[in-house]
Amino acid sequence: MEIICVGNELLIGKTLNTNAHWLGRRATSLGMMVKRITVVGDDVDEIANALLEALQRKPRFIITTGGLGPTFDDKTLEGVGRALNRKLKVNRKALKMVREKYEAYVKAGRMEKFELTPPRLKMAKLPEGTEPLPNPVGTAPGMTIRVGETFLIALPGVPREMEAIFEESVAFLLKKEAGDVAFFEISLYADDIMESVLAPLIDQAMHGNPYVYIKSHPKGEEKKPHMEIHFSTTAKDRTTAKERLEKAVAQLSELIQKSGGKIKSRDKLF
Amino acid sequence: MEIICVGNELLIGKTLNTNAHWLGRRATSLGMMVKRITVVGDDVDEIANALLEALQRKPRFIITTGGLGPTFDDKTLEGVGRALNRKLKVNRKALKMVREKYEAYVKAGRMEKFELTPPRLKMAKLPEGTEPLPNPVGTAPGMTIRVGETFLIALPGVPREMEAIFEESVAFLLKKEAGDVAFFEISLYADDIMESVLAPLIDQAMHGNPYVYIKSHPKGEEKKPHMEIHFSTTAKDRTTAKERLEKAVAQLSELIQKSGGKIKSRDKLF
Repeated sequence: MEIICVGNELLIGKTLNTNAHWLGRRATSLGMMVKRITVVGDDVDEIANALLEALQRKPRFIITTGGLGPTFDDKTLEGVGRALNRKLKVNRKALKMVREKYEAYVKAGRMEKFELTPPRLKMAKLPEGTEPLPNPVGTAPGMTIRVGETFLIALPGVPREMEAIFEESVAFLLKKEAGDVAFFEISLYADDIMESVLAPLIDQAMHGNPYVYIKSHPKGEEKKPHMEIHFSTTAKDRTTAKERLEKAVAQLSELIQKSGGKIKSRDKLF
Repeated sequence: MEIICVGNELLIGKTLNTNAHWLGRRATSLGMMVKRITVVGDDVDEIANALLEALQRKPRFIITTGGLGPTFDDKTLEGVGRALNRKLKVNRKALKMVREKYEAYVKAGRMEKFELTPPRLKMAKLPEGTEPLPNPVGTAPGMTIRVGETFLIALPGVPREMEAIFEESVAFLLKKEAGDVAFFEISLYADDIMESVLAPLIDQAMHGNPYVYIKSHPKGEEKKPHMEIHFSTTAKDRTTAKERLEKAVAQLSELIQKSGGKIKSRDKLF
Protein backbone atom coordinates (compact mmCIF):
# COMPACT_ATOMS: atom_id res chain seq x y z
CA MET A 1 0.00 0.00 0.00
CA GLU A 2 0.97 3.65 -0.32
CA ILE A 3 0.31 6.72 1.82
CA ILE A 4 -0.07 10.22 0.39
CA CYS A 5 -0.04 13.10 2.88
CA VAL A 6 -1.33 16.49 1.76
CA GLY A 7 -0.38 19.75 3.46
CA ASN A 8 2.03 22.67 3.08
CA GLU A 9 2.66 22.49 6.85
CA LEU A 10 4.41 19.13 6.31
CA LEU A 11 6.68 20.52 3.56
CA ILE A 12 7.75 23.65 5.43
CA GLY A 13 8.55 21.63 8.55
CA LYS A 14 5.87 23.29 10.64
CA THR A 15 4.16 19.99 11.46
CA LEU A 16 5.87 16.67 12.17
CA ASN A 17 4.21 13.98 10.04
CA THR A 18 2.76 11.88 12.84
CA ASN A 19 -0.10 10.77 10.55
CA ALA A 20 2.23 8.86 8.21
CA HIS A 21 3.94 7.37 11.26
CA TRP A 22 0.66 6.26 12.83
CA LEU A 23 -0.75 4.87 9.57
CA GLY A 24 2.52 3.06 8.76
CA ARG A 25 2.61 1.47 12.18
CA ARG A 26 -1.06 0.53 12.20
CA ALA A 27 -1.10 -0.87 8.63
CA THR A 28 2.09 -2.85 9.31
CA SER A 29 0.61 -4.29 12.49
CA LEU A 30 -2.39 -5.45 10.43
CA GLY A 31 -0.01 -7.35 8.13
CA MET A 32 0.12 -4.86 5.23
CA MET A 33 3.36 -3.64 3.68
CA VAL A 34 3.69 0.12 3.16
CA LYS A 35 5.90 0.64 0.10
CA ARG A 36 5.92 4.41 -0.22
CA ILE A 37 4.91 7.60 1.56
CA THR A 38 4.53 10.79 -0.51
CA VAL A 39 4.02 14.28 0.89
CA VAL A 40 2.72 17.07 -1.35
CA GLY A 41 1.40 20.58 -0.74
CA ASP A 42 -2.11 22.02 -0.93
CA ASP A 43 -2.12 22.14 -4.71
CA VAL A 44 -4.60 20.34 -6.98
CA ASP A 45 -2.02 19.44 -9.64
CA GLU A 46 0.50 18.16 -7.10
CA ILE A 47 -2.16 16.02 -5.43
CA ALA A 48 -3.49 14.69 -8.76
CA ASN A 49 0.03 13.87 -9.99
CA ALA A 50 0.94 12.03 -6.79
CA LEU A 51 -2.30 10.04 -7.05
CA LEU A 52 -1.78 9.16 -10.72
CA GLU A 53 1.79 8.07 -10.09
CA ALA A 54 0.73 5.90 -7.15
CA LEU A 55 -2.16 4.37 -9.14
CA GLN A 56 0.29 3.38 -11.89
CA ARG A 57 2.23 1.31 -9.35
CA LYS A 58 -1.04 -0.58 -8.68
CA PRO A 59 -0.90 -0.88 -4.90
CA ARG A 60 -3.87 -2.58 -3.23
CA PHE A 61 -4.50 0.54 -1.10
CA ILE A 62 -3.73 4.23 -1.40
CA ILE A 63 -4.59 6.16 1.75
CA THR A 64 -4.42 9.95 1.69
CA THR A 65 -4.44 12.22 4.73
CA GLY A 66 -5.35 15.91 4.88
CA GLY A 67 -7.17 18.38 2.67
CA LEU A 68 -10.81 17.39 3.34
CA GLY A 69 -11.92 20.35 5.43
CA PRO A 70 -13.99 23.48 4.69
CA THR A 71 -11.22 25.96 3.81
CA PHE A 72 -10.03 27.08 0.37
CA ASP A 73 -6.78 25.15 0.71
CA ASP A 74 -8.47 21.81 1.45
CA LYS A 75 -7.95 20.43 -2.06
CA THR A 76 -7.68 16.66 -1.83
CA LEU A 77 -11.15 15.91 -3.24
CA GLU A 78 -10.48 18.24 -6.15
CA GLY A 79 -7.17 16.43 -6.66
CA VAL A 80 -8.95 13.05 -6.67
CA GLY A 81 -11.49 14.45 -9.12
CA ARG A 82 -8.76 15.66 -11.45
CA ALA A 83 -6.77 12.43 -11.24
CA LEU A 84 -9.82 10.27 -11.98
CA ASN A 85 -11.44 12.72 -14.38
CA ARG A 86 -14.60 12.93 -12.31
CA LYS A 87 -16.56 16.04 -11.45
CA LEU A 88 -17.19 17.10 -7.86
CA LYS A 89 -20.87 16.93 -7.00
CA VAL A 90 -22.82 17.21 -3.79
CA ASN A 91 -23.03 13.64 -2.49
CA ARG A 92 -26.39 12.91 -0.86
CA LYS A 93 -24.97 10.62 1.85
CA ALA A 94 -22.08 12.97 2.60
CA LEU A 95 -24.44 15.92 2.88
CA LYS A 96 -26.56 13.95 5.36
CA MET A 97 -23.44 13.24 7.43
CA VAL A 98 -22.36 16.89 7.46
CA ARG A 99 -25.88 18.14 8.22
CA GLU A 100 -26.36 15.69 11.11
CA LYS A 101 -23.05 16.75 12.63
CA TYR A 102 -23.98 20.43 12.68
CA GLU A 103 -27.51 19.68 13.89
CA ALA A 104 -25.94 17.81 16.79
CA TYR A 105 -23.79 20.87 17.51
CA VAL A 106 -26.94 23.02 17.58
CA LYS A 107 -28.58 20.56 20.00
CA ALA A 108 -25.50 20.63 22.20
CA GLY A 109 -25.68 24.43 22.29
CA ARG A 110 -22.40 24.88 20.43
CA MET A 111 -24.03 27.00 17.69
CA GLU A 112 -27.31 28.86 17.41
CA LYS A 113 -28.63 27.45 14.17
CA PHE A 114 -27.38 25.46 11.23
CA GLU A 115 -26.86 27.18 7.92
CA LEU A 116 -25.59 25.27 4.91
CA THR A 117 -22.86 27.78 4.03
CA PRO A 118 -20.55 27.17 1.04
CA PRO A 119 -17.62 25.99 3.25
CA ARG A 120 -19.94 23.41 4.84
CA LEU A 121 -21.39 22.32 1.52
CA LYS A 122 -17.82 21.95 0.24
CA MET A 123 -17.19 19.04 2.62
CA ALA A 124 -20.09 17.14 0.99
CA LYS A 125 -18.89 17.65 -2.58
CA LEU A 126 -17.23 14.41 -3.61
CA PRO A 127 -15.94 13.20 -6.97
CA GLU A 128 -18.77 11.41 -8.78
CA GLY A 129 -18.98 7.70 -8.03
CA THR A 130 -17.10 7.88 -4.73
CA GLU A 131 -18.50 6.97 -1.31
CA PRO A 132 -18.27 9.05 1.87
CA LEU A 133 -16.88 7.49 5.08
CA PRO A 134 -18.52 8.67 8.31
CA ASN A 135 -16.37 10.80 10.64
CA PRO A 136 -17.21 9.80 14.23
CA VAL A 137 -15.33 12.71 15.82
CA GLY A 138 -15.43 15.61 13.35
CA THR A 139 -17.40 17.14 10.49
CA ALA A 140 -15.50 16.31 7.27
CA PRO A 141 -16.37 12.81 5.98
CA GLY A 142 -13.68 10.59 4.51
CA MET A 143 -14.01 9.22 0.97
CA THR A 144 -13.40 5.94 -0.81
CA ILE A 145 -13.50 4.59 -4.33
CA ARG A 146 -12.17 1.50 -6.02
CA VAL A 147 -9.98 2.21 -9.07
CA GLY A 148 -9.09 -1.02 -10.84
CA GLU A 149 -7.51 -3.22 -8.17
CA THR A 150 -6.77 -0.27 -5.88
CA PHE A 151 -8.88 0.99 -2.97
CA LEU A 152 -8.34 4.74 -2.86
CA ILE A 153 -9.22 6.11 0.58
CA ALA A 154 -9.10 9.77 1.66
CA LEU A 155 -8.90 10.61 5.39
CA PRO A 156 -8.75 14.01 7.12
CA GLY A 157 -5.51 15.52 8.42
CA VAL A 158 -6.63 16.11 12.01
CA PRO A 159 -5.00 13.08 13.71
CA ARG A 160 -7.91 12.01 15.90
CA GLU A 161 -10.36 12.24 12.99
CA MET A 162 -7.98 10.34 10.70
CA GLU A 163 -7.51 7.64 13.32
CA ALA A 164 -11.22 7.34 14.10
CA ILE A 165 -12.28 6.91 10.46
CA PHE A 166 -9.41 4.47 9.90
CA GLU A 167 -10.44 2.28 12.82
CA GLU A 168 -14.16 2.38 11.95
CA SER A 169 -14.10 2.03 8.16
CA VAL A 170 -10.62 1.09 6.91
CA ALA A 171 -8.80 -1.26 9.33
CA PHE A 172 -11.01 -4.28 8.53
CA LEU A 173 -10.32 -3.89 4.78
CA LEU A 174 -6.56 -3.99 5.37
CA LYS A 175 -6.86 -6.92 7.74
CA LYS A 176 -8.95 -8.82 5.19
CA GLU A 177 -6.39 -8.15 2.47
CA ALA A 178 -3.44 -9.13 4.66
CA GLY A 179 -5.08 -12.42 5.55
CA ASP A 180 -3.95 -14.21 8.68
CA VAL A 181 -0.41 -12.85 8.85
CA ALA A 182 0.78 -10.20 11.26
CA PHE A 183 3.95 -8.24 11.90
CA PHE A 184 6.08 -8.89 15.00
CA GLU A 185 9.17 -7.04 16.19
CA ILE A 186 11.64 -6.69 19.02
CA SER A 187 14.62 -4.40 19.71
CA LEU A 188 17.94 -5.31 21.31
CA TYR A 189 20.26 -2.60 22.66
CA ALA A 190 24.05 -2.97 22.59
CA ASP A 191 27.03 -0.87 23.65
CA ASP A 192 30.71 -0.90 22.74
CA ILE A 193 30.19 -2.13 19.21
CA MET A 194 30.63 -0.04 16.08
CA GLU A 195 28.18 -0.37 13.24
CA SER A 196 31.01 -1.42 10.90
CA VAL A 197 31.83 -4.31 13.27
CA LEU A 198 28.17 -5.19 13.69
CA ALA A 199 27.46 -5.25 9.92
CA PRO A 200 28.95 -8.70 9.11
CA LEU A 201 27.41 -10.16 12.29
CA ILE A 202 23.97 -9.06 11.12
CA ASP A 203 24.65 -10.63 7.72
CA GLN A 204 25.53 -13.87 9.48
CA ALA A 205 22.48 -13.80 11.78
CA MET A 206 20.12 -13.03 8.87
CA HIS A 207 21.64 -15.85 6.86
CA GLY A 208 20.82 -18.25 9.71
CA ASN A 209 17.33 -16.77 10.21
CA PRO A 210 15.88 -16.28 6.75
CA TYR A 211 12.44 -15.08 7.93
CA VAL A 212 13.80 -12.41 10.24
CA TYR A 213 14.82 -8.93 9.05
CA ILE A 214 17.51 -7.29 11.17
CA LYS A 215 18.47 -3.64 10.98
CA SER A 216 20.88 -1.60 13.11
CA HIS A 217 20.07 1.94 14.22
CA PRO A 218 23.01 3.90 15.65
CA LYS A 219 21.97 6.11 18.57
CA GLY A 220 23.82 8.32 20.99
CA GLU A 221 26.88 10.41 20.34
CA GLU A 222 29.93 9.65 18.22
CA LYS A 223 32.05 9.37 21.35
CA LYS A 224 29.53 7.26 23.21
CA PRO A 225 27.88 5.14 20.54
CA HIS A 226 24.89 3.04 21.37
CA MET A 227 23.19 0.62 19.03
CA GLU A 228 19.54 -0.34 18.67
CA ILE A 229 19.12 -3.55 16.69
CA HIS A 230 15.62 -4.11 15.37
CA PHE A 231 14.36 -7.62 14.54
CA SER A 232 11.11 -8.12 12.65
CA THR A 233 9.16 -10.93 11.05
CA THR A 234 5.79 -11.48 9.42
CA ALA A 235 4.11 -14.65 10.65
CA LYS A 236 0.75 -16.35 10.96
CA ASP A 237 0.87 -16.70 14.72
CA ARG A 238 2.63 -15.41 17.81
CA THR A 239 4.27 -18.72 18.65
CA THR A 240 6.04 -18.93 15.30
CA ALA A 241 7.03 -15.27 15.44
CA LYS A 242 8.28 -15.63 19.00
CA GLU A 243 10.41 -18.68 18.17
CA ARG A 244 11.93 -16.98 15.14
CA LEU A 245 12.71 -13.73 16.92
CA GLU A 246 14.08 -15.42 20.06
CA LYS A 247 16.41 -17.57 17.96
CA ALA A 248 17.71 -14.61 15.95
CA VAL A 249 18.15 -12.44 19.06
CA ALA A 250 20.06 -15.22 20.84
CA GLN A 251 22.36 -15.85 17.88
CA LEU A 252 23.17 -12.20 17.25
CA SER A 253 23.63 -11.53 20.99
CA GLU A 254 26.26 -14.26 21.10
CA LEU A 255 28.03 -12.90 18.03
CA ILE A 256 28.05 -9.39 19.50
CA GLN A 257 29.49 -10.58 22.80
CA LYS A 258 32.19 -12.60 21.02
CA SER A 259 33.18 -9.39 19.20
CA GLY A 260 33.56 -7.47 22.46
CA GLY A 261 30.16 -5.75 22.44
CA LYS A 262 27.86 -5.58 25.46
CA ILE A 263 24.16 -6.41 25.38
CA LYS A 264 22.53 -3.68 27.45
CA SER A 265 18.87 -4.65 27.32
CA ARG A 266 16.08 -5.90 25.10
CA ASP A 267 12.40 -5.22 24.72
CA LYS A 268 9.95 -7.72 26.12
CA LEU A 269 8.48 -10.04 23.55
CA PHE A 270 4.73 -9.52 23.23
CA MET B 1 13.51 21.18 -4.05
CA GLU B 2 12.58 17.63 -3.10
CA ILE B 3 13.47 15.37 -0.19
CA ILE B 4 13.77 11.58 -0.49
CA CYS B 5 14.01 9.63 2.78
CA VAL B 6 15.24 6.05 2.65
CA GLY B 7 14.50 3.49 5.37
CA ASN B 8 12.10 0.64 6.14
CA GLU B 9 11.82 2.00 9.69
CA LEU B 10 9.98 5.04 8.30
CA LEU B 11 7.49 2.90 6.34
CA ILE B 12 6.64 0.52 9.19
CA GLY B 13 6.11 3.43 11.58
CA LYS B 14 8.98 2.46 13.85
CA THR B 15 10.69 5.83 13.42
CA LEU B 16 9.02 9.23 13.20
CA ASN B 17 10.43 11.09 10.19
CA THR B 18 12.10 13.94 12.06
CA ASN B 19 14.73 14.24 9.29
CA ALA B 20 12.17 15.36 6.70
CA HIS B 21 10.70 17.75 9.26
CA TRP B 22 14.10 19.25 10.12
CA LEU B 23 15.19 19.53 6.47
CA GLY B 24 11.85 21.04 5.43
CA ARG B 25 12.05 23.63 8.18
CA ARG B 26 15.69 24.47 7.56
CA ALA B 27 15.38 24.68 3.76
CA THR B 28 12.25 26.83 4.06
CA SER B 29 13.98 29.18 6.49
CA LEU B 30 16.76 29.57 3.91
CA GLY B 31 14.15 30.69 1.36
CA MET B 32 13.81 27.43 -0.60
CA MET B 33 10.46 25.82 -1.38
CA VAL B 34 10.12 22.10 -0.68
CA LYS B 35 7.67 20.69 -3.20
CA ARG B 36 7.66 17.00 -2.33
CA ILE B 37 8.89 14.51 0.26
CA THR B 38 9.11 10.84 -0.74
CA VAL B 39 9.80 7.95 1.63
CA VAL B 40 10.93 4.57 0.26
CA GLY B 41 12.34 1.41 1.82
CA ASP B 42 15.85 -0.06 1.78
CA ASP B 43 15.53 -1.35 -1.76
CA VAL B 44 17.76 -0.39 -4.70
CA ASP B 45 14.93 -0.33 -7.26
CA GLU B 46 12.64 1.72 -5.03
CA ILE B 47 15.41 4.24 -4.37
CA ALA B 48 16.43 4.44 -8.05
CA ASN B 49 12.79 4.89 -9.15
CA ALA B 50 12.14 7.64 -6.61
CA LEU B 51 15.31 9.41 -7.79
CA LEU B 52 14.46 9.11 -11.49
CA GLU B 53 10.92 10.39 -10.90
CA ALA B 54 12.24 13.34 -8.89
CA LEU B 55 14.91 14.14 -11.51
CA GLN B 56 12.20 14.26 -14.20
CA ARG B 57 10.48 17.05 -12.28
CA LYS B 58 13.77 19.01 -12.53
CA PRO B 59 13.96 20.49 -9.03
CA ARG B 60 17.04 22.57 -8.27
CA PHE B 61 17.91 20.26 -5.33
CA ILE B 62 17.17 16.67 -4.39
CA ILE B 63 18.34 15.80 -0.88
CA THR B 64 18.21 12.18 0.25
CA THR B 65 18.55 10.98 3.85
CA GLY B 66 19.52 7.52 5.06
CA GLY B 67 21.17 4.44 3.58
CA LEU B 68 24.83 5.55 3.57
CA GLY B 69 26.17 3.36 6.39
CA PRO B 70 28.20 0.15 6.46
CA THR B 71 25.40 -2.45 6.67
CA PHE B 72 23.93 -4.59 3.89
CA ASP B 73 20.70 -2.59 3.88
CA ASP B 74 22.39 0.79 3.38
CA LYS B 75 21.54 1.01 -0.32
CA THR B 76 21.24 4.67 -1.26
CA LEU B 77 24.56 4.91 -3.14
CA GLU B 78 23.68 1.79 -5.10
CA GLY B 79 20.29 3.38 -5.85
CA VAL B 80 22.01 6.58 -7.08
CA GLY B 81 24.35 4.45 -9.20
CA ARG B 82 21.44 2.59 -10.77
CA ALA B 83 19.43 5.77 -11.40
CA LEU B 84 22.37 7.54 -13.06
CA ASN B 85 23.81 4.45 -14.70
CA ARG B 86 27.14 4.85 -12.95
CA LYS B 87 29.22 2.13 -11.35
CA LEU B 88 30.18 2.24 -7.68
CA LYS B 89 33.93 2.61 -7.24
CA VAL B 90 36.17 3.32 -4.30
CA ASN B 91 36.42 7.13 -4.20
CA ARG B 92 39.90 8.27 -3.18
CA LYS B 93 38.69 11.31 -1.22
CA ALA B 94 35.92 9.35 0.48
CA LEU B 95 38.35 6.61 1.46
CA LYS B 96 40.66 9.21 2.99
CA MET B 97 37.71 10.59 5.01
CA VAL B 98 36.70 7.14 6.27
CA ARG B 99 40.30 6.15 7.06
CA GLU B 100 41.00 9.37 8.98
CA LYS B 101 37.85 8.89 11.04
CA TYR B 102 38.83 5.40 12.17
CA GLU B 103 42.44 6.44 12.77
CA ALA B 104 41.13 9.16 15.07
CA TYR B 105 39.07 6.50 16.88
CA VAL B 106 42.24 4.44 17.36
CA LYS B 107 44.08 7.49 18.75
CA ALA B 108 41.21 8.18 21.11
CA GLY B 109 41.43 4.60 22.37
CA ARG B 110 38.02 3.63 21.06
CA MET B 111 39.43 0.74 18.99
CA GLU B 112 42.71 -1.16 19.00
CA LYS B 113 43.72 -0.85 15.37
CA PHE B 114 42.16 0.12 12.08
CA GLU B 115 41.38 -2.54 9.54
CA LEU B 116 39.82 -1.66 6.20
CA THR B 117 37.06 -4.28 6.40
CA PRO B 118 34.48 -4.61 3.58
CA PRO B 119 31.75 -2.75 5.57
CA ARG B 120 34.15 0.18 6.05
CA LEU B 121 35.30 0.15 2.45
CA LYS B 122 31.61 0.14 1.43
CA MET B 123 31.16 3.66 2.82
CA ALA B 124 33.87 4.93 0.45
CA LYS B 125 32.35 3.33 -2.67
CA LEU B 126 30.56 6.12 -4.50
CA PRO B 127 28.95 6.24 -7.95
CA GLU B 128 31.59 7.34 -10.47
CA GLY B 129 31.81 11.10 -10.94
CA THR B 130 30.22 11.97 -7.59
CA GLU B 131 31.92 13.88 -4.76
CA PRO B 132 32.01 12.91 -1.09
CA LEU B 133 30.89 15.40 1.58
CA PRO B 134 32.83 15.26 4.86
CA ASN B 135 30.94 14.01 7.91
CA PRO B 136 32.08 16.06 10.93
CA VAL B 137 30.39 13.82 13.50
CA GLY B 138 30.32 10.27 12.08
CA THR B 139 32.03 7.92 9.67
CA ALA B 140 29.85 7.73 6.53
CA PRO B 141 30.53 10.64 4.13
CA GLY B 142 27.69 12.32 2.28
CA MET B 143 27.69 12.51 -1.51
CA THR B 144 26.87 15.08 -4.16
CA ILE B 145 26.64 15.27 -7.93
CA ARG B 146 25.13 17.69 -10.37
CA VAL B 147 22.66 16.11 -12.83
CA GLY B 148 21.59 18.64 -15.45
CA GLU B 149 20.21 21.57 -13.45
CA THR B 150 19.73 19.50 -10.30
CA PHE B 151 22.11 19.18 -7.36
CA LEU B 152 21.63 15.65 -6.02
CA ILE B 153 22.85 15.41 -2.42
CA ALA B 154 22.86 12.28 -0.24
CA LEU B 155 23.01 12.65 3.55
CA PRO B 156 23.09 9.95 6.26
CA GLY B 157 20.00 8.97 8.27
CA VAL B 158 21.43 9.52 11.75
CA PRO B 159 19.93 12.95 12.55
CA ARG B 160 23.01 14.61 14.05
CA GLU B 161 25.18 13.45 11.14
CA MET B 162 22.59 14.57 8.58
CA GLU B 163 22.31 17.97 10.26
CA ALA B 164 26.08 18.45 10.59
CA ILE B 165 26.79 17.70 6.90
CA PHE B 166 23.85 19.88 5.87
CA GLU B 167 25.12 22.87 7.85
CA GLU B 168 28.72 22.44 6.73
CA SER B 169 28.33 21.60 3.03
CA VAL B 170 24.73 22.15 1.88
CA ALA B 171 23.12 25.16 3.59
CA PHE B 172 25.20 27.74 1.70
CA LEU B 173 24.18 26.21 -1.66
CA LEU B 174 20.48 26.55 -0.79
CA LYS B 175 20.96 30.08 0.50
CA LYS B 176 22.79 31.05 -2.69
CA GLU B 177 20.00 29.59 -4.82
CA ALA B 178 17.24 31.26 -2.79
CA GLY B 179 18.91 34.65 -3.14
CA ASP B 180 18.04 37.31 -0.61
CA VAL B 181 14.55 36.14 0.26
CA ALA B 182 13.63 34.40 3.47
CA PHE B 183 10.54 32.78 4.98
CA PHE B 184 8.70 34.38 7.89
CA GLU B 185 5.76 33.05 9.89
CA ILE B 186 3.56 33.63 12.90
CA SER B 187 0.68 31.75 14.53
CA LEU B 188 -2.48 33.14 16.06
CA TYR B 189 -4.63 31.05 18.41
CA ALA B 190 -8.41 31.43 18.57
CA ASP B 191 -11.27 29.82 20.51
CA ASP B 192 -15.03 29.62 19.98
CA ILE B 193 -14.84 29.65 16.21
CA MET B 194 -15.54 26.68 13.95
CA GLU B 195 -13.34 26.07 10.94
CA SER B 196 -16.40 26.38 8.65
CA VAL B 197 -17.04 29.87 10.06
CA LEU B 198 -13.38 30.79 9.83
CA ALA B 199 -13.01 29.65 6.20
CA PRO B 200 -14.60 32.69 4.47
CA LEU B 201 -12.81 35.06 6.89
CA ILE B 202 -9.47 33.60 5.81
CA ASP B 203 -10.49 34.02 2.17
CA GLN B 204 -11.25 37.67 2.89
CA ALA B 205 -7.99 38.28 4.80
CA MET B 206 -5.92 36.60 2.08
CA HIS B 207 -7.65 38.66 -0.56
CA GLY B 208 -6.61 41.84 1.29
CA ASN B 209 -3.07 40.53 1.90
CA PRO B 210 -1.93 38.95 -1.35
CA TYR B 211 1.64 38.13 -0.16
CA VAL B 212 0.51 36.35 2.99
CA TYR B 213 -0.55 32.70 3.06
CA ILE B 214 -3.02 31.85 5.82
CA LYS B 215 -3.93 28.33 6.88
CA SER B 216 -6.09 27.09 9.75
CA HIS B 217 -5.13 24.07 11.84
CA PRO B 218 -7.91 22.71 14.07
CA LYS B 219 -6.56 21.52 17.42
CA GLY B 220 -8.16 20.19 20.57
CA GLU B 221 -11.27 18.06 20.90
CA GLU B 222 -14.48 18.16 18.92
CA LYS B 223 -16.33 19.43 21.99
CA LYS B 224 -13.68 22.00 22.85
CA PRO B 225 -12.30 23.14 19.50
CA HIS B 226 -9.28 25.34 19.37
CA MET B 227 -7.82 26.88 16.25
CA GLU B 228 -4.24 27.63 15.29
CA ILE B 229 -4.04 30.05 12.36
CA HIS B 230 -0.69 30.12 10.62
CA PHE B 231 0.44 33.17 8.62
CA SER B 232 3.49 33.00 6.38
CA THR B 233 5.25 35.13 3.80
CA THR B 234 8.46 35.10 1.79
CA ALA B 235 10.19 38.47 1.79
CA LYS B 236 13.55 40.13 1.24
CA ASP B 237 13.76 41.64 4.69
CA ARG B 238 12.31 41.41 8.16
CA THR B 239 10.70 44.83 8.08
CA THR B 240 8.64 44.04 5.00
CA ALA B 241 7.71 40.61 6.39
CA LYS B 242 6.76 42.07 9.75
CA GLU B 243 4.53 44.74 8.20
CA ARG B 244 2.78 42.20 6.00
CA LEU B 245 2.20 39.70 8.79
CA GLU B 246 1.09 42.32 11.35
CA LYS B 247 -1.45 43.72 8.90
CA ALA B 248 -2.88 40.29 8.04
CA VAL B 249 -3.00 39.22 11.71
CA ALA B 250 -4.79 42.45 12.68
CA GLN B 251 -7.37 42.15 9.90
CA LEU B 252 -8.17 38.50 10.53
CA SER B 253 -8.27 39.05 14.31
CA GLU B 254 -10.92 41.71 13.81
CA LEU B 255 -12.96 39.48 11.49
CA ILE B 256 -12.78 36.60 13.99
CA GLN B 257 -13.94 38.81 16.87
CA LYS B 258 -16.80 40.18 14.79
CA SER B 259 -17.92 36.59 14.18
CA GLY B 260 -17.96 35.80 17.89
CA GLY B 261 -14.56 34.12 18.11
CA LYS B 262 -11.99 34.87 20.81
CA ILE B 263 -8.31 35.57 20.13
CA LYS B 264 -6.46 33.61 22.80
CA SER B 265 -2.85 34.44 22.03
CA ARG B 266 -0.30 34.91 19.30
CA ASP B 267 3.35 34.09 18.81
CA LYS B 268 5.88 36.86 19.11
CA LEU B 269 7.07 38.23 15.80
CA PHE B 270 10.79 37.53 15.34
